[in-house]
Amino acid sequence: MTRERLLFAGADEYQTVFAEAARDVAGIEFVAYAPDLDLTGIRYLLMWRPVPGLAKAMPNLQAVFCFGAGVERLLGSTEVPAHVPIVRMVEPGLTSGMVEYVLWQALRHHRRIWELEEAQAQGKWAPHWYPASWDRSVGILGFGELGQAAGEKLTEFGFPVRGWSRSRKEHAAIRCYAGADELAAFLDGLEILVCLLPLTPETKSILNADLLGRLKPGASLINVGRGGHLVEEDLIAALESGQLIAASLDVFSQEPLPATHAFWRHPRIFMTPHNASDTDPAGGLAAIARQIARAAQGHPLEHVADRARGY
Amino acid sequence: MTRERLLFAGADEYQTVFAEAARDVAGIEFVAYAPDLDLTGIRYLLMWRPVPGLAKAMPNLQAVFCFGAGVERLLGSTEVPAHVPIVRMVEPGLTSGMVEYVLWQALRHHRRIWELEEAQAQGKWAPHWYPASWDRSVGILGFGELGQAAGEKLTEFGFPVRGWSRSRKEHAAIRCYAGADELAAFLDGLEILVCLLPLTPETKSILNADLLGRLKPGASLINVGRGGHLVEEDLIAALESGQLIAASLDVFSQEPLPATHAFWRHPRIFMTPHNASDTDPAGGLAAIARQIARAAQGHPLEHVADRARGY
Repeated sequence: MTRERLLFAGADEYQTVFAEAARDVAGIEFVAYAPDLDLTGIRYLLMWRPVPGLAKAMPNLQAVFCFGAGVERLLGSTEVPAHVPIVRMVEPGLTSGMVEYVLWQALRHHRRIWELEEAQAQGKWAPHWYPASWDRSVGILGFGELGQAAGEKLTEFGFPVRGWSRSRKEHAAIRCYAGADELAAFLDGLEILVCLLPLTPETKSILNADLLGRLKPGASLINVGRGGHLVEEDLIAALESGQLIAASLDVFSQEPLPATHAFWRHPRIFMTPHNASDTDPAGGLAAIARQIARAAQGHPLEHVADRARGY
Repeated sequence: MTRERLLFAGADEYQTVFAEAARDVAGIEFVAYAPDLDLTGIRYLLMWRPVPGLAKAMPNLQAVFCFGAGVERLLGSTEVPAHVPIVRMVEPGLTSGMVEYVLWQALRHHRRIWELEEAQAQGKWAPHWYPASWDRSVGILGFGELGQAAGEKLTEFGFPVRGWSRSRKEHAAIRCYAGADELAAFLDGLEILVCLLPLTPETKSILNADLLGRLKPGASLINVGRGGHLVEEDLIAALESGQLIAASLDVFSQEPLPATHAFWRHPRIFMTPHNASDTDPAGGLAAIARQIARAAQGHPLEHVADRARGY
């Protein structure tokens, strides 16, 4: 089997582990970017941060693979020529890690961990009440690959789950809402809201005072979309008023989050450093190899970002 | 449909919610214990703490239902005459709550929450590595109703799960170990150990230095069995040596745990006040009504404790 060269760029910190994982993936030859590399004949590029001038300097470029599920950085730059498809990452490790994180955080909120932690800190034996999972509603804002996987797992725990997406989806066990017209009905009375949206001009700042105000008073927010979805001061205000009782945030408008930011020490905000789920190098490269094999057989690439809708 | 009287005793703090839930459960009439009550003709008793003299004063007593899944208090006393069956609680709310708790805690340990919490407290942006769920082994010590339900859910998350029980069980997706002979093989290299055993003379103090020493160095413990399973000083020593990295404890040798106990402020012990899962009043009473209906039809009761084996 011939090996197609895959150029790796714009994520130096992951180069070693990806290079190592690539040895076990049939069909691709891992090529690390270097300034003096002859780019002629290299048809596939794996990129995270856009590397200035690189894609345009590859005369035979067929596709750019993104390192993660969110492609707004690549779509938002003019670095990738319009005729070159940009492929979102869909691989089992990334999905599994995200499902883990969402469930872990949903259970924290469902079980009101802050009450337990406060009692432990005070040496106070204080059993508390919590509802059955079937009496706690959860909504997934962004009902794509990751949102559906998380929603299904929440359903298996008994939570009544709703999903919202831009375009209508169908699901046997989850009530689906679509488009701006159905957003208010989706939000109405929700107790745990999970944001797994792509970041687009339409979804920027969607987690604002108006949206948070439509949830059930005392609701929780889990943001694993992008920092740009959240109006940070509106979150702080909602926590202060009690409209929200707690939040879990993995993504921030500025990353790394500055050390002086108010989120770090907020007692009801649990933070992770954009670490909810990472692409598994072996799984990610195998997913790319499958797409390259599809192209070689004349099949269309899957998970191609739509530049018009922005994801 | 005639309603069979069910006498409620030994758990005054729950009497109101159970009395209320009983209104919607067909087939039983809820009777709260009072000293002057005529006990003649009452055939069923729902009890948590043994009430001195009560069972023996009921000439027509057919069965004692226990409030929870663990019946060691009732079996350990001589209050219930030997010919009267003691029925363990098995109901969906109790199972669902326990599965939630075990998964929540397993995910905390899997995702190394202490690293994330320490970084947040220091305002430090520090993404960390964690393995895929399929590279993290979990063992369920006590593979009965609750253990199997938790083990199945862990399997659905991708964790490789082992189950250990006194008598051999079979499971399609979970490797089962049985008896003292196979305990060492079950423990060998485990990273997360969940105790869901019944408390019997055989299992008392089973979570000791020898057992903890057989886990993978840096393993975690989740004890949702009974406080009597754990040798508390051995846990502290294992955390100090690094053999264990963290523990989640819901049960304690003395409950409420005295305010001066070292567990309260241990940075790597997460405590809940015997609150991992509670019997849902409606679900519990429905389960009891089903058993009473079985008895009326001449069928044997289910989930009857075996006095010889101790659960």
